[in-house]
Amino acid sequence: MLPSPLDSSTSYLSTTTVVALCVFFALLCACIIVGHLLEENRWANESITSLLLGLCSGVVVLLVTKFHSTEILIFNEDLFFLYLLPPIIFNAGFQVKKKQFFRNFTTILLFGVLGTVISFCLISLGAFLLFSAIGITNLDIKDHLAIGAILSATDSVCTLQVLSQDETPFLYSIVFGEGVVNDATSIVLFNSVQSLDFSSINAITVLKLLGTFLYLFCTSTALGIGVGLLSAYIIKTLYFGRHSTDREVALMMLMAYLSYMIAELLNLSGILTIFFCGIVMSHYTWHNVTESSRTTTKHSFATISFIAETFIFLYVGMDAFDIDKWKRSKASIGTSVAVSSTLIALVLIGRAAFVFPIANLANCTKTRDSTKIEFRSQAFDQRCFQMQFSKSEIASAEDSLMITSTIILVLFSTVVFGSITKPLIKAVKLRNSKPSISDSTDIHEDLRLLFLENNCSINQSNNQTYHRQSSLSLLMRYPTTTVHYFWRKFDDKFMRRIFGGRGFVPVVPGSLPAEEDIS
Amino acid sequence: MLPSPLDSSTSYLSTTTVVALCVFFALLCACIIVGHLLEENRWANESITSLLLGLCSGVVVLLVTKFHSTEILIFNEDLFFLYLLPPIIFNAGFQVKKKQFFRNFTTILLFGVLGTVISFCLISLGAFLLFSAIGITNLDIKDHLAIGAILSATDSVCTLQVLSQDETPFLYSIVFGEGVVNDATSIVLFNSVQSLDFSSINAITVLKLLGTFLYLFCTSTALGIGVGLLSAYIIKTLYFGRHSTDREVALMMLMAYLSYMIAELLNLSGILTIFFCGIVMSHYTWHNVTESSRTTTKHSFATISFIAETFIFLYVGMDAFDIDKWKRSKASIGTSVAVSSTLIALVLIGRAAFVFPIANLANCTKTRDSTKIEFRSQAFDQRCFQMQFSKSEIASAEDSLMITSTIILVLFSTVVFGSITKPLIKAVKLRNSKPSISDSTDIHEDLRLLFLENNCSINQSNNQTYHRQSSLSLLMRYPTTTVHYFWRKFDDKFMRRIFGGRGFVPVVPGSLPAEEDIS
Repeated sequence: MLPSPLDSSTSYLSTTTVVALCVFFALLCACIIVGHLLEENRWANESITSLLLGLCSGVVVLLVTKFHSTEILIFNEDLFFLYLLPPIIFNAGFQVKKKQFFRNFTTILLFGVLGTVISFCLISLGAFLLFSAIGITNLDIKDHLAIGAILSATDSVCTLQVLSQDETPFLYSIVFGEGVVNDATSIVLFNSVQSLDFSSINAITVLKLLGTFLYLFCTSTALGIGVGLLSAYIIKTLYFGRHSTDREVALMMLMAYLSYMIAELLNLSGILTIFFCGIVMSHYTWHNVTESSRTTTKHSFATISFIAETFIFLYVGMDAFDIDKWKRSKASIGTSVAVSSTLIALVLIGRAAFVFPIANLANCTKTRDSTKIEFRSQAFDQRCFQMQFSKSEIASAEDSLMITSTIILVLFSTVVFGSITKPLIKAVKLRNSKPSISDSTDIHEDLRLLFLENNCSINQSNNQTYHRQSSLSLLMRYPTTTVHYFWRKFDDKFMRRIFGGRGFVPVVPGSLPAEEDIS
Repeated sequence: MLPSPLDSSTSYLSTTTVVALCVFFALLCACIIVGHLLEENRWANESITSLLLGLCSGVVVLLVTKFHSTEILIFNEDLFFLYLLPPIIFNAGFQVKKKQFFRNFTTILLFGVLGTVISFCLISLGAFLLFSAIGITNLDIKDHLAIGAILSATDSVCTLQVLSQDETPFLYSIVFGEGVVNDATSIVLFNSVQSLDFSSINAITVLKLLGTFLYLFCTSTALGIGVGLLSAYIIKTLYFGRHSTDREVALMMLMAYLSYMIAELLNLSGILTIFFCGIVMSHYTWHNVTESSRTTTKHSFATISFIAETFIFLYVGMDAFDIDKWKRSKASIGTSVAVSSTLIALVLIGRAAFVFPIANLANCTKTRDSTKIEFRSQAFDQRCFQMQFSKSEIASAEDSLMITSTIILVLFSTVVFGSITKPLIKAVKLRNSKPSISDSTDIHEDLRLLFLENNCSINQSNNQTYHRQSSLSLLMRYPTTTVHYFWRKFDDKFMRRIFGGRGFVPVVPGSLPAEEDIS
């Protein structure tokens, strides 16, 4: 028997919160361990493990609470948008291979913007036509457009867990970059749909939408870059490293998060902002801190992002058994399945409709054969599944049926597409055992840079006009490489002098040389 | 003019939350930068900076919202107990110098348990006698005892920011250890006060209380050690390092937090549990992970703890201007000041009443002159100020006047005592320029260990009885050293073989030798 004074020991904490946190943390540990043990398994990955563990615990919770209490499963979108999403996106920006990313920037924008719009139109149209056939008639045009906007956003979190940045760098940077741009586009589309007056759609509305997107894209990017540069400047000027590694790391974390919050405050796209903040921080700030801080930031950002991802998939699994949602929808099993299958089909068609044509378009405009996007890659990219659980919460005002269907969609796509991607990539790689894309392009670029470098040194002593002509023609023929070359010159001459960066930081005696893992 | 579709861009986040987070994160950044700039200033430290910045921003918020909206200042105890306290205590356990800590364990327990009880009795009695003199009569005996329990807990967070583990190791380990034990004692006292029936106090009640404390102390410690060992075993067995640093770090973080939540779930002292979990993790788990994980965990735990501390002080400052609390108390300024001064006086008397006698007692029982606790150290220790803002929330049911008085108490003690500790320590150190305590004891201990080692080797070959006699007599004469010696033998023979630890982990080819910073 416990002594009586203990009974009120946790009076300051609600038991529900403690129980929920205990369950979630224990499950997270289990996910990591089981995910590690299944590492070698070709069909499984960490997302699927988390999702299945979540499903199992959902069933257990349901049985323990006898089908009525779902309090442990409460999860609001604040948690997702304030605490889980920012570290994932920031870490993505921080760890992305910047050279690869910017080289494919045009392709990424094509996929991200044009693709999302195509997908949005197709899904909305399809939903409009097919739902009335199934027997759902209580949705108006706004709802259909909202469904299109929500489902046209792809989530790259799960796909990137399967893809490797080192093995398939080109595919990785395309899929990843598209995911980020895509997200911004779909937010703009969703908000536009919510606020548009459909009685007066004309050319000006479309132009306005385009203007909004450009405004959103540029300001968000500028904010992220600004905050990143500010952090670099502060750390370089004050040089915190002399005193404390912890302060540097704390400042980097806080400023990254601050950029996201400021963007949200100004109604910009926080995702774009924190992504670019991560890129700038890894390019400048990261080189200004001590060696310990470098290791710490690199791994702790990755760890936090990893925990957040695992939590999301775990939660999606548990959420599927939130019995209230199923009760509220009141639809028959047949209707649910029909709606879900329709949505899955629409999403796949929507993806296919833009991935294949755009990939071909992108290939046509490229002159170099080696960077040709392979058909297999497209087929794979098309399998980027949708993870909409968070956005489905927004739609809760629309119809509960849509939520339950989205849950089915998420579960199906994660498990099915998640497990076939690994074997698929292997199959594709075996067939194309020619030198990998990244190697050949890297050599190509190195040769080009060498040529340009020589070109410049000759010109500076002899003939300035010839140089300018040459640069211009080069810009026309190899736009990305040339832009990159001039950016590097500008970066070395001005930016790195002010904000620090690799090679522009005084070496601390006794410290190790900088790790070159993040480039 | 912003295009219309942007207006509802953050529909999924409440503006209040975003604004509050923006303000807090910006202020945190400011605290770190200003604290860094004032590093050389002898009167200031990070806590005071944060507190003053918090006060200033409290005023600004009050002026901006025109004295009625205090929504930005809402802070519940859940945030403190679930998210801010655990990392601080865990990091303390993780970074504490274990040798110092366990060598002074008896002294720490004396200070922590006996001292808190003495302080509790004195403050309760004083409050009972003085408050009626001031004119506050609406408190019953339970309220007075609650005040005593709340104010007898000292907070070591601020003091430890000023003390240095390397310069004054003895003082640091005493102050720190006392803070942890003290906290557990005061929680037991507070809960006992809440649940006791005061109509029938007798010897059995007191014994019951003592039993409760012992039960709480032992189970909490055992739980913390258990979870710590489990984490070491899992990481050693599965050897995560081969695959991913992030998984190791994630698992350590999650399991540490899990130990705290389980303790809270079982109505134990989460603080004690996570503290011992930190100690065990730094002794075993930390040595089982990769080199990168070691650097990452060491610095990221310290960073998280640092941010949490800064946030707490910042919040205490802002909270002082929560106008609702002041309005609710309805007391005149005179009464407020009187109550606050009474409380400050009582707290100081309560501390003095146990610090000086116990320090003398501890000195008397020690045979070695070199470890004599100096009078100056006591006088300084006595200045460990109280930070009770979180627990004052519990008391909110009692009386708003008590809360406002506690706020004054916290502000006064932090600013006044916080600024005089640094110069005080300097003055004490200048006067005692003889070799520092830690040096002499370390040499002493090394000699002893050497003697024991020789002793053993001789005995093992010649005479086992003599050895046992000698060990016993040694145990009587030098209990701590002998216990430590046998613990080390046991640790090397059994524990480290199972759970890993320094020297018992297979060296990964190409990795650097383990850092020895945490010992």
